[in-house]
Amino acid sequence: MSPPIPKDPAFRARIQASFDKQGLMRTLGASILRIEPGAVGIALPASPAVSQQHGFVHAGAVAAIADTAAGYAALTLMPPGAGVLTTEFKINLVAPAAGERILARGRVIKAGRTLTLAQAEVFAETAGQEKLVAFLTATLMAIEGRDGMAD
Amino acid sequence: MSPPIPKDPAFRARIQASFDKQGLMRTLGASILRIEPGAVGIALPASPAVSQQHGFVHAGAVAAIADTAAGYAALTLMPPGAGVLTTEFKINLVAPAAGERILARGRVIKAGRTLTLAQAEVFAETAGQEKLVAFLTATLMAIEGRDGMAD
Amino acid sequence: MSPPIPKDPAFRARIQASFDKQGLMRTLGASILRIEPGAVGIALPASPAVSQQHGFVHAGAVAAIADTAAGYAALTLMPPGAGVLTTEFKINLVAPAAGERILARGRVIKAGRTLTLAQAEVFAETAGQEKLVAFLTATLMAIEGRDGMAD
Amino acid sequence: MSPPIPKDPAFRARIQASFDKQGLMRTLGASILRIEPGAVGIALPASPAVSQQHGFVHAGAVAAIADTAAGYAALTLMPPGAGVLTTEFKINLVAPAAGERILARGRVIKAGRTLTLAQAEVFAETAGQEKLVAFLTATLMAIEGRDGMAD
Repeated sequence: MSPPIPKDPAFRARIQASFDKQGLMRTLGASILRIEPGAVGIALPASPAVSQQHGFVHAGAVAAIADTAAGYAALTLMPPGAGVLTTEFKINLVAPAAGERILARGRVIKAGRTLTLAQAEVFAETAGQEKLVAFLTATLMAIEGRDGMAD
Repeated sequence: MSPPIPKDPAFRARIQASFDKQGLMRTLGASILRIEPGAVGIALPASPAVSQQHGFVHAGAVAAIADTAAGYAALTLMPPGAGVLTTEFKINLVAPAAGERILARGRVIKAGRTLTLAQAEVFAETAGQEKLVAFLTATLMAIEGRDGMAD
Repeated sequence: MSPPIPKDPAFRARIQASFDKQGLMRTLGASILRIEPGAVGIALPASPAVSQQHGFVHAGAVAAIADTAAGYAALTLMPPGAGVLTTEFKINLVAPAAGERILARGRVIKAGRTLTLAQAEVFAETAGQEKLVAFLTATLMAIEGRDGMAD
Repeated sequence: MSPPIPKDPAFRARIQASFDKQGLMRTLGASILRIEPGAVGIALPASPAVSQQHGFVHAGAVAAIADTAAGYAALTLMPPGAGVLTTEFKINLVAPAAGERILARGRVIKAGRTLTLAQAEVFAETAGQEKLVAFLTATLMAIEGRDGMAD
C-alpha cells in the first residue's frame, strides 16, 4: 500500500501547534516524537505523577496518549481547516504499563470523509527494550467549519 | 434488584486509600464523591490543566476518571485482599466535555469471580445542571494474591 | 426523564418493515417483540442452527440481535426517510448464552443529529427466568437522503 | 518478530473440528480458508440469507465471522485440551459490506495465559479485488479443564 498523501502540506506544524494547546498533554509530561502522513508517535515518561495504585502508569494516562496519537494520525490526512474529535475508543490493556517511558504509535486504518478509524499500539520502554502494553482503536470525526474547532 | 453486598466491610476505607495512591488522580485534581456497594462517583474540575486543543476537557481525562470510577465500583464487591486491574474499556464521547466539572458515576453491571463488567456515565456540570458527555464500559480483572497488587 | 418523542408517527410499521427485509434475522429465526420510542426488543430461539462449538448460542448470533435491537431503537427516534447504519459496537459477553431463547433489549442512550449511541442488554431465558449474558453499546449513523438507504 | 509456535501440533485438525461443530457457521454458509500459527481466515459468501435491510451483508454476520476468526487465531496458540471463549469484542464497520464474499482474517496481537487479544480485518471481495469493511479486536479467555468446553 502506498503511503497516504496529506491534503495539508503544513500538517506537521499544524499538529504540533494543536498538541501544544492540549493542557492535559503538558500536565502529563507527554511530547510528540514523530509526525508522518497517517501516523503520529507520542511519548510519556513514567513517573508517580501518572501512576495508579500499584505504581504502574495509570490506564487513563495510557489511554490519553494513545487516543491523542490516534487522533493526530487521523488529522494528518485531513484538509486544512478541518478539526478532529474522538467519538469513541476502545483500549485493551494487555500488560501492566511498567517501564521508563510509554510510547504510543497511532496509525490510520481507514480515512473517511466524516469518520476515520485509527489504531494506536502502546509500548513500555525499559533500557531500550519495548513491550506491548496496550492496543487502542478509535473513531475520529472530522469537524470542518465549526467555530473554533479547527485542528 | 436488591443491592449487592460487599464481601469486605471496610470497602470504603480501602477504596479511598487506594485512590489516594493514584498519582494520576492527584495530578488531574480528581476526587471521590461517593462510594456505595457496586457504585463509585468521581469528580474532576474542568481547567486548562486537563484540556484538549479546543478548550474542552480532554477525552483522555474523561476516560481516566470514568475508568477509575468503574474500576473502584468493581472493587467495592471484591473480597478483602483482592486487587483490580482494567483489562479493557470502551468509551463513547457523545458531547464535548464542557462545564465547570466532570462527574463520572461508575456502576457494576455483572460481578464475576475473575472478570467484572462495569459501566460509567460521565456528565459535565454547569450551574448545577448535568449533561451526559460520555459512556464507558470496562472489564476489570480480580488479581487476588499477586504481590503488591491488592486494591 | 420523559420518554423521547418519535419524529415519525409511523415508526413502528416502518421498523417492522425494515426488520422483515433483513435476511439474516429470518435466517437466524429472530423476531421483534416490542417497539417503543427509543427502545426495541428482539427474541432469538436457541437452537443448533445458531450454536457455537460448546452448544451455547454463538457470540456472533448474540451480537447480531443485540446490534439489531440497538440499531432499531435508534431508528425509532429518527425522522421519516432517515436510515441507520452501525458504525461500531462493542459487546461484553458476561455468561454463556445458554437457555431456551435469547432476548435483546435495545435502548437509546443519546440521540444525536448524525450519531446516536444506543445500548442493548441481552438475556438468556430459561423456564421464564432471565439471566444477563451480554451488554452491547453501539454507534449508529443517520443516513438521510442516500439512495436506497432509508430505514 | 518470529512466528508464534503452537503448543498443540494438531492445532489445524482441532480447529477445523471445532469449527465444524459451530451450527451458526454452517447456517451462515461460512468456511475456513486458512489456519496458521496465530492466524485464521474465514470466508462468507454474500447472499440474501445474511443481508441487512439495504442488501449489504448484516453487521451481525460480519461480526460473527470476524469474532470466529479472531477466536480460532487465539486457539491456535493454546495448549491441547484448552478451550476458548470470547469475553468481549469491538467491531468498527468502515464501509458497507457489499461484494461477492466477505473475508475475515484473524490474528493474535498478544497471547496470554488467561486472556488473549486478537484482531480481525474483514474485507469485501468483488471480482478479485478486496476492500476493507470492518476491523475487530477481541478478548479471548482460555478455559482449560472445564467440562465439555475444550476447543
